[in-house]
Amino acid sequence: MVSAIQKEQREQEIIEMIARIKEPFKMASRAYKGVDSVVTVEGRSIGNGHFAVIAGPCSVESHSQIIDIAKSIDGSGAKFLRGGAFKPRTSPYDFQGLQGEGLELLRAAKKATGLPVVTEIMSVKQLEDYADIIDVIQIGARNMQNFDLLKAAGKINKPVLLKRGMSATIEEFLMASEYILAGGNQQVILCERGIRTFEKYTRNTLDLSAVPVIKRFSHLPVVIDPSHATGDARYVESMSLAAVAAGADGLMIEVHNNPEKAVSDGKQSLTPEAFRALMVKVEQIAEITGKMM
Amino acid sequence: MVSAIQKEQREQEIIEMIARIKEPFKMASRAYKGVDSVVTVEGRSIGNGHFAVIAGPCSVESHSQIIDIAKSIDGSGAKFLRGGAFKPRTSPYDFQGLQGEGLELLRAAKKATGLPVVTEIMSVKQLEDYADIIDVIQIGARNMQNFDLLKAAGKINKPVLLKRGMSATIEEFLMASEYILAGGNQQVILCERGIRTFEKYTRNTLDLSAVPVIKRFSHLPVVIDPSHATGDARYVESMSLAAVAAGADGLMIEVHNNPEKAVSDGKQSLTPEAFRALMVKVEQIAEITGKMM
Amino acid sequence: MVSAIQKEQREQEIIEMIARIKEPFKMASRAYKGVDSVVTVEGRSIGNGHFAVIAGPCSVESHSQIIDIAKSIDGSGAKFLRGGAFKPRTSPYDFQGLQGEGLELLRAAKKATGLPVVTEIMSVKQLEDYADIIDVIQIGARNMQNFDLLKAAGKINKPVLLKRGMSATIEEFLMASEYILAGGNQQVILCERGIRTFEKYTRNTLDLSAVPVIKRFSHLPVVIDPSHATGDARYVESMSLAAVAAGADGLMIEVHNNPEKAVSDGKQSLTPEAFRALMVKVEQIAEITGKMM
Amino acid sequence: MVSAIQKEQREQEIIEMIARIKEPFKMASRAYKGVDSVVTVEGRSIGNGHFAVIAGPCSVESHSQIIDIAKSIDGSGAKFLRGGAFKPRTSPYDFQGLQGEGLELLRAAKKATGLPVVTEIMSVKQLEDYADIIDVIQIGARNMQNFDLLKAAGKINKPVLLKRGMSATIEEFLMASEYILAGGNQQVILCERGIRTFEKYTRNTLDLSAVPVIKRFSHLPVVIDPSHATGDARYVESMSLAAVAAGADGLMIEVHNNPEKAVSDGKQSLTPEAFRALMVKVEQIAEITGKMM
Repeated sequence: MVSAIQKEQREQEIIEMIARIKEPFKMASRAYKGVDSVVTVEGRSIGNGHFAVIAGPCSVESHSQIIDIAKSIDGSGAKFLRGGAFKPRTSPYDFQGLQGEGLELLRAAKKATGLPVVTEIMSVKQLEDYADIIDVIQIGARNMQNFDLLKAAGKINKPVLLKRGMSATIEEFLMASEYILAGGNQQVILCERGIRTFEKYTRNTLDLSAVPVIKRFSHLPVVIDPSHATGDARYVESMSLAAVAAGADGLMIEVHNNPEKAVSDGKQSLTPEAFRALMVKVEQIAEITGKMM
Repeated sequence: MVSAIQKEQREQEIIEMIARIKEPFKMASRAYKGVDSVVTVEGRSIGNGHFAVIAGPCSVESHSQIIDIAKSIDGSGAKFLRGGAFKPRTSPYDFQGLQGEGLELLRAAKKATGLPVVTEIMSVKQLEDYADIIDVIQIGARNMQNFDLLKAAGKINKPVLLKRGMSATIEEFLMASEYILAGGNQQVILCERGIRTFEKYTRNTLDLSAVPVIKRFSHLPVVIDPSHATGDARYVESMSLAAVAAGADGLMIEVHNNPEKAVSDGKQSLTPEAFRALMVKVEQIAEITGKMM
Repeated sequence: MVSAIQKEQREQEIIEMIARIKEPFKMASRAYKGVDSVVTVEGRSIGNGHFAVIAGPCSVESHSQIIDIAKSIDGSGAKFLRGGAFKPRTSPYDFQGLQGEGLELLRAAKKATGLPVVTEIMSVKQLEDYADIIDVIQIGARNMQNFDLLKAAGKINKPVLLKRGMSATIEEFLMASEYILAGGNQQVILCERGIRTFEKYTRNTLDLSAVPVIKRFSHLPVVIDPSHATGDARYVESMSLAAVAAGADGLMIEVHNNPEKAVSDGKQSLTPEAFRALMVKVEQIAEITGKMM
Repeated sequence: MVSAIQKEQREQEIIEMIARIKEPFKMASRAYKGVDSVVTVEGRSIGNGHFAVIAGPCSVESHSQIIDIAKSIDGSGAKFLRGGAFKPRTSPYDFQGLQGEGLELLRAAKKATGLPVVTEIMSVKQLEDYADIIDVIQIGARNMQNFDLLKAAGKINKPVLLKRGMSATIEEFLMASEYILAGGNQQVILCERGIRTFEKYTRNTLDLSAVPVIKRFSHLPVVIDPSHATGDARYVESMSLAAVAAGADGLMIEVHNNPEKAVSDGKQSLTPEAFRALMVKVEQIAEITGKMM
């Protein structure tokens, strides 16, 4: 016995299902490109067997800070330097980053170490003004569906590291990457950084199952950010090793030479020593999973 | 017996608590302004006892569509016309709105009815180009933490209707409004439009408790959008009446003269007839709660 | 172009869809029973146009406490007395209720006022021991999928007030009621009491859209508990009025004669005076929605 | 400038904070017991350096099914056999398990292989009737806060595997274990099996950060169930390896000799061959993390 209401429900579900199938990710999908994509910057690769660690402070604070950290993580095996010059802050009264000056300091750190720089851009204007002096453009979680910015990022010739929105489904995440790919830019790296749930002991809930799910549906490289996901340095090692074992293509880890005095997110930053120790273990597991570091 | 770990936990919690108290909303708070704010556009007010209904289609589609709908909702007692010209779409391959042409059609509808126009702007550039010909600038849920756009909206002399992000806490929502207020623009209307949860029978979960919570902490007017929250026209009447009873200052409702043929969100749109019937009931409850329509 | 993976996805979705349609609620559905159900206890009805307010303290604490509160709410128009004798507590070290003694005190309060008693039962054994002396058996949110208890509740001849689990979908909620109905007990009242989300300003998020959704799919009466949902007496009036306007069949409200000294949940309890004032407004809105109180 | 409302907020927060610190887990905490707990059944250990894999079908279906699977997983290195005799089902019309007969078949499988049996018990009555013939009592996610059952489980002399509720915080999870410990039973194994979020590509979201968080606060062993968490066999290997790398003490994995014909949850079951291949990789990573298998 199937009732009238059940029939109506069924019809509705079929319509919704067809709608969903008709308009998913195209260029981001495995159906479009069978081989894993690899993004390469100055000889350093992420994806298709290449594993990369991106490390550095939450915010660029000073010349000595960023140079010290850059040298240290370089020595420990990081492939890229991260550091925020433009900071998306919940409050307008909080530190908004060193802006252009921060970018200059990142360039100095790159000069001192050779590490290409990953840094966040928050608007189309910043992209126009600064894309030339950044190696990998980061689009943050809060801007994952800033479609104007995504379209602009599709028109540049620079790799883009796109972070998953705090409450974005994986489907929406891949659709956001589709905006960049459809614009013509094929150098996209996806970054899972924790989703918003009811759990309170961690800042967000790291969704590591995003790794095999994305690997199934897409050819794009996937990087995990355990620092923002957990919000607590004590959980970063465990989640980093889990990410490698899960099959991620890279890690994005906050490192600070003086976490207690960091202007932002010190609580989640590893010391250079802890980062060095972590890298040894990361390498062991990456080897088992067949990744090159 | 309090253990070492518990002590550490406690210390951490105290630090976090102080951090939270030190940096909340300032200009959005009741402590800053005791009297309820009212936003007035061409003699039509929202807030501080004035109740307003904003109605219209999801997308502007054609001249006859928007004129017909505008006349109809005007006759039913709506104070503002809504209609999307720039559409934030999950997929880059979906209809992105009539853009500038859509704004022209909205102006024509305003000319025909006198209804001021509420429409979404998705970027700083659109704000610069079009703010002059829009009566109330809408900033959508996906852009609630597009801080660049918020800052720009703080510099204009037009009311801003700010929608709550899909997974934004009320605190973050008020902090986003703070960006606009801190920039100098005091004409801010808050709009709750459903948050993301695990429930599947509705598109989002309408958080009506946001009404008394915001009323407690802030002086800003609060409007409810039951159409996007539920995603289903069958639930719009019930949630509209609940919103009025809860103490909201207004409603934002999708109305389409031909929901089945709507280019977007037809499923959640009321017919003009259903909207007219709803308005009669809205008025009855608004009267009980002491609001002027 | 539909890819192989998309085809696989589609097939899977069709299979899941059919599975979903094949096994939903049967006896709880509108298809099974077109007319709204009404539950009547000693001449007091909930459902099918009859509106009822259930009020009382979180925990039964003493003879004078429960008698005082019962008399007060009776005078304000409540139809049922609530009060916990068996308390489900997160910690084993917290007050677990007065148990059997609490039930005796509830009987005394009923004798003094005539108010039928609604109280929670946490196990099959308690049901066997005490069902005779309780008027409406409450099954709490934590036990919503305690299938053993649901089956036992299906075998008794007493009304059951079933609370929605903190993270239960409406479908699961209706399926839980189906366990009771399928056992032979048709006297089921559903109670929405807030779901778990990321929002922190309220204890849970009251999902008022559950009212029109349940009304669409089921004939069972729906009651709203704004006290547990918000966890804060300051939000109870707003959410109570919203619930009535949304079309609920009743309210379940915590009232305490001395909220600051309550052994549990004092923060969310109304004083008898606040409750009296609320009832006046509830009645006004119930009248508009065509409900009899 | 701190306003009156902010002061009130602060006071409230301090009160809530103290309440939280005053009543957390005691016997489950590291402060109570510094050394990691180990649970040993017939010489097979979980915890404190001992890693164990629990494998088997969702439901016990027949003699040949359970014997075949038991022999196969035994040969691959599993330490325990799982299999459901009593099944908690959302619908009362679904297969509820073979009940007592299922337990007999599990005993037969144990006799054939020597594998101790882990199986779910859904009520106090089942616990009384069957605890003697089960090696490890499982309490399922839906019963995590069935306090009556937890108290009864605290009185028996059998290990208990307690699953995290679908929307339970880690704090509530540890408090639920506290009920068992406080009753006198120290043999508790915690099992993370995915929490409920908005993500739709996986059935639940596996919260692997629960591993380092629980390790920090508690001495109890932690096991991960990637089968229920993801609901899809394609994601089980990735999440299993991640769990080992994260520091879990064990895995609980569904294996079926004919997944397509399984009466329940076939979609998430590994074939015996896939399970064998997985175990080789699990062992490699367990070795790196210093665990004995």
